[in-house]
Amino acid sequence: MQTFQPPRRVLMGPGPSDVSPRVLAALARPTIGHLDPAFQSLMEEIKGALQRLFNAPDHACVPLPAPGTAGMEAAMMNLLEPGDRAVVAINGVFGGRMADMAGRAGATVVTVEHEWGQPVDPARVEAALAEAPTKLLAFVHAETSTGVRSDAATLCGLARKHRALSVVDCVTSLGGIAVDAAAWGADVIYSGTQKCLSAPPGLSPIALSKAAQAAIAGRKEKVRNWLLDFNLLMAYWGGPEGSGGGGRTYHHTAPVNALYGLHESLVVLFEEGVQAATVRHARMHEALAAGIEAAGLKFLVEPKWRLPMLNTVIVPDGVDEAAVRAHVLKAWDLELGAGLGPLKGKVWRIGLMGESATPWHVRLCLTALCDALNAQGVSVDSRAVLAAAEGRLQQ
Amino acid sequence: MQTFQPPRRVLMGPGPSDVSPRVLAALARPTIGHLDPAFQSLMEEIKGALQRLFNAPDHACVPLPAPGTAGMEAAMMNLLEPGDRAVVAINGVFGGRMADMAGRAGATVVTVEHEWGQPVDPARVEAALAEAPTKLLAFVHAETSTGVRSDAATLCGLARKHRALSVVDCVTSLGGIAVDAAAWGADVIYSGTQKCLSAPPGLSPIALSKAAQAAIAGRKEKVRNWLLDFNLLMAYWGGPEGSGGGGRTYHHTAPVNALYGLHESLVVLFEEGVQAATVRHARMHEALAAGIEAAGLKFLVEPKWRLPMLNTVIVPDGVDEAAVRAHVLKAWDLELGAGLGPLKGKVWRIGLMGESATPWHVRLCLTALCDALNAQGVSVDSRAVLAAAEGRLQQ
Repeated sequence: MQTFQPPRRVLMGPGPSDVSPRVLAALARPTIGHLDPAFQSLMEEIKGALQRLFNAPDHACVPLPAPGTAGMEAAMMNLLEPGDRAVVAINGVFGGRMADMAGRAGATVVTVEHEWGQPVDPARVEAALAEAPTKLLAFVHAETSTGVRSDAATLCGLARKHRALSVVDCVTSLGGIAVDAAAWGADVIYSGTQKCLSAPPGLSPIALSKAAQAAIAGRKEKVRNWLLDFNLLMAYWGGPEGSGGGGRTYHHTAPVNALYGLHESLVVLFEEGVQAATVRHARMHEALAAGIEAAGLKFLVEPKWRLPMLNTVIVPDGVDEAAVRAHVLKAWDLELGAGLGPLKGKVWRIGLMGESATPWHVRLCLTALCDALNAQGVSVDSRAVLAAAEGRLQQ
Repeated sequence: MQTFQPPRRVLMGPGPSDVSPRVLAALARPTIGHLDPAFQSLMEEIKGALQRLFNAPDHACVPLPAPGTAGMEAAMMNLLEPGDRAVVAINGVFGGRMADMAGRAGATVVTVEHEWGQPVDPARVEAALAEAPTKLLAFVHAETSTGVRSDAATLCGLARKHRALSVVDCVTSLGGIAVDAAAWGADVIYSGTQKCLSAPPGLSPIALSKAAQAAIAGRKEKVRNWLLDFNLLMAYWGGPEGSGGGGRTYHHTAPVNALYGLHESLVVLFEEGVQAATVRHARMHEALAAGIEAAGLKFLVEPKWRLPMLNTVIVPDGVDEAAVRAHVLKAWDLELGAGLGPLKGKVWRIGLMGESATPWHVRLCLTALCDALNAQGVSVDSRAVLAAAEGRLQQ
């Protein structure tokens, strides 16, 4: 057993994305104690930064000590208990996962199923909400499995109208397109670190509204999860109200170095500006899309609902999906994503997330993809493809 | 908001312990994808290394993607369901936490309470097991809150005798004293990374026996936890049997860089040798104890049951416990641990874990402690204290 030296990789799959040298350097700073006064300051800064990033000034924000899935699990386990009704919109892998978790929390789960590649349909969701009193509406803002955005503002509004709490999965959207807890009136929003924040995977930032907190405080039985029990977590993180972290109660041992990394990724993001980062993601997507279309390839999702950071490209007839990914990995050290579930073998998922959303990444990806397609016997003019992308990059 | 620069700290509390430069460097290596073939090799190496470290050749071993508490939660949530009876021995904070979690899993929980500072009493545990058919016996091998070891071999034997599965918390013991899943016949053993492995906090290595796996496969209802559902986890980690990681099924996104760190900490530990590390922990404890006693201080725990890596020292009458910790932090950048629960204000907890179990740490700790006691008006001869420790270090 020897020291592991990772190979060179360019990460343009569905996450993790490339991590900046600044964040990697932060991870390697010496570990301090999780009850250290200096660490407490770090926690307070992270809480405040997450409030700004989610635009959630009245929410309690913390980074959960586990991957993005933990945010989903925390939402479902804290808000739901046996007897509750939950409406879950499903238009990809992650909506399905939400429904599974809601069932484990003991709720009666009503799913609103959509074809993969379509956004969540507000009319069908409203019909499900109108059927019976509902505790919670859950949906995915940016479906990583399909590359589709759904209309979070409208869906949160429907939840409010029907007196349900809203749970919004922003794992892939946060830092890449507009996420606005206050404007949407979202009750629980969570994300991951390994997408548009470009920190390594392992943490899940989450924001809970006062209504969500009240619902948790009013539970009849204990949360079916100790590590993610929001009452215990908030006592550890020093309360929801910028209380300065006074009176912290020991809960788990925080993942200190991972939090150094998240903190630095937030510093990097605010230096650029959240709005500027959003514009950058949109621009890189447009350039990539111009190249993809110049190569004769098509997107799964119609333009209005496309995610800039997760591009789902249809595999042309006669092309071996996995062979293309294997080729770009071998020849270009480039990771692209495969399709999941019903899209397996039918699409590639190309990530343009955070540090991976740069002109260099657009150029490399298109070059490698043209190379792989030509190797498969599909003739593509890579010069024309790059020129199409370059035309958008220069605008 | 600016880049966070942690202060210099020497970590001699209950964990995290000092992290070696080699492990810190590993954390900072570029992130690769969690489905990358190279990452798959890393996962296989970690699984194999954990099997060796737990001495669990027939167990399924994985590092859970969350702090040590996740191991406890995974054990309780996977093994227990409503209608099951669980016997939980409590002799400190962590036994109490186990009982709390067993209740959240829906089990009928029978606790066997002990005075804090005492090991678990096999006779009383057996009496509880004999009362009714029991699914699971849970106890803590090394109680971090009190510094007490319990007799894991005997307790696992009692579980077997009464046809219960055994769950052993080895968060603080693994890598510092003998941990032997095979010899004990332990069904579930878990640990953390931030104690004697000296990696940062954030992961929880766990081992499950074939009997534990069969119990999970035979559950009537779903595990009340999606992230830690062992059936889903093992499909992601490529099966329990060294199957080469073939056919991995996407579950969560593994915390890639944290796993680089764990891997390197295992490389470091095997370079030294697990047995040699155990001897080192014992020697450092004896040297520290000689100094502590030369300073006129007393241990909470009788010698037979003391943990070498977690030294619980009684605060002398008239000494302000918190002031001493504040002094050594301010003047010596040294973190010591406070007492928890009924021991709050009454003890210090001095960690000698992993990279923090060296002669340098013993000397620094005794020097700082003498300085702080003298500042409190308790006259201590630091030369004599150091000489007592040095006498043991030279043996």
